Amino acid sequence: MLLMRPYKHPPASDFVLERVLYALSDSIRLGIVRHLAQHGPATCGELDGGRPKSTVSHHFKVLREAGLVLTESTGTTHMNTLRRAELDARFPGLLAALLQPEPAAA
Amino acid sequence: MLLMRPYKHPPASDFVLERVLYALSDSIRLGIVRHLAQHGPATCGELDGGRPKSTVSHHFKVLREAGLVLTESTGTTHMNTLRRAELDARFPGLLAALLQPEPAAA
Repeated sequence: MLLMRPYKHPPASDFVLERVLYALSDSIRLGIVRHLAQHGPATCGELDGGRPKSTVSHHFKVLREAGLVLTESTGTTHMNTLRRAELDARFPGLLAALLQPEPAAA
Repeated sequence: MLLMRPYKHPPASDFVLERVLYALSDSIRLGIVRHLAQHGPATCGELDGGRPKSTVSHHFKVLREAGLVLTESTGTTHMNTLRRAELDARFPGLLAALLQPEPAAA
């Protein structure tokens, strides 16, 4: 039997701004965070945009390790949630700024 | 005679959020941006923290290419300015969120 280990998530006290910014500096990861913010928790399958599983797994790992996303497994389903309250407490205004639509370029 | 070419700076219409976030995902670069925001324009020498010139040059290049910093040369002096108004217009609230002191970790 394959033993499933739970995913590791840093406590909010260990969040590092630079790591959060790095996690969000990729279009796919930024898109995942925006999707979770708008639509609530979602499975990896709902968020993969048809990309290869290995690619998407890597992106979720980066998001988890930065503290942006909580992944919980139920059987083979992995449900992802944005850690919004904790992020807002540590970095007030940051997610709000990132999640608003960008003004049209001048 | 060595011909000095002016630094390249993207117009605000070409700013890309992911690139801005990447530029800010490094402690040295984030520190430079915070210093410029608090104290106004500064030379590279005032911002290098005693680091090797090649290291600092690389960081300024990343900051310039993302649109965060404007570097203007007068003779051998390179003066750096945060492109705050343009950044605020393109990404409202982002710099404000990044420049405030971080709340103490819980």
